[in-house]
Amino acid sequence: MENEKYYTLTGYKRKNQDIITETMEDYIEMIYRNTIKKEEISVKDLSLLLNVRPSSVSKMISKLHKLDIVNFKKYGHISLTSKGKSLGMFYLDRHNTLTIFFKLLNKDKFTLEQVEKIEHFVDKITVYNIKQIINR
Amino acid sequence: MENEKYYTLTGYKRKNQDIITETMEDYIEMIYRNTIKKEEISVKDLSLLLNVRPSSVSKMISKLHKLDIVNFKKYGHISLTSKGKSLGMFYLDRHNTLTIFFKLLNKDKFTLEQVEKIEHFVDKITVYNIKQIINR
Repeated sequence: MENEKYYTLTGYKRKNQDIITETMEDYIEMIYRNTIKKEEISVKDLSLLLNVRPSSVSKMISKLHKLDIVNFKKYGHISLTSKGKSLGMFYLDRHNTLTIFFKLLNKDKFTLEQVEKIEHFVDKITVYNIKQIINR
Repeated sequence: MENEKYYTLTGYKRKNQDIITETMEDYIEMIYRNTIKKEEISVKDLSLLLNVRPSSVSKMISKLHKLDIVNFKKYGHISLTSKGKSLGMFYLDRHNTLTIFFKLLNKDKFTLEQVEKIEHFVDKITVYNIKQIINR
């Protein structure tokens, strides 16, 4: 461990007090992806896209609203705040960058599952440097 | 999502019924790392190495014992079964492979934290192909 203090993954999360969970990131990325086309999305449409129950979507949207990430209007219409848009732009860019990288790396063995699982833990510097590799 | 069904990270875990959690992987990797030098490790030493409480170690060792991953003798001595050794060898190799890759990628911006966070989600094919890149 080269003299660095060791933490388990849970330990790292506790240490860093990560407020935005992986599930929140998935929501923000999906809302961003859709609001590029149309400013708002309904709870029902989001639940279909994320393959989760509408009641789970409602709970999560309430949490994201408290963090000033989404606006939530009556009739269940969700849109991103400027903070939410900025996060969504990063998550989608990270997703696309990693998708290109893993397609180059794993070729016919490429799976989207590999990207979806690791993307949450990939930091900005890594995304930046992977882009440099891809663009070579 | 290119016609593939979308899952959140929690959704993927549920779908795959991942029995070995990320924390379990951290334990197995650390026990393997240490039992290369010495066949057994004590609960106390493992708790110090993993930066967790001895009571947490005891609980986890009980779970790993049920999965036939560790042997647990009186006086708190832990060793790996052949299944545990095989897993530990993979986890340590994955850790070392990713450490080399991220050092090459991020240079002076390298952090062990980036490796520790993503390694749990990196599959065998990706480890194999990253090795090919490193060895070029």
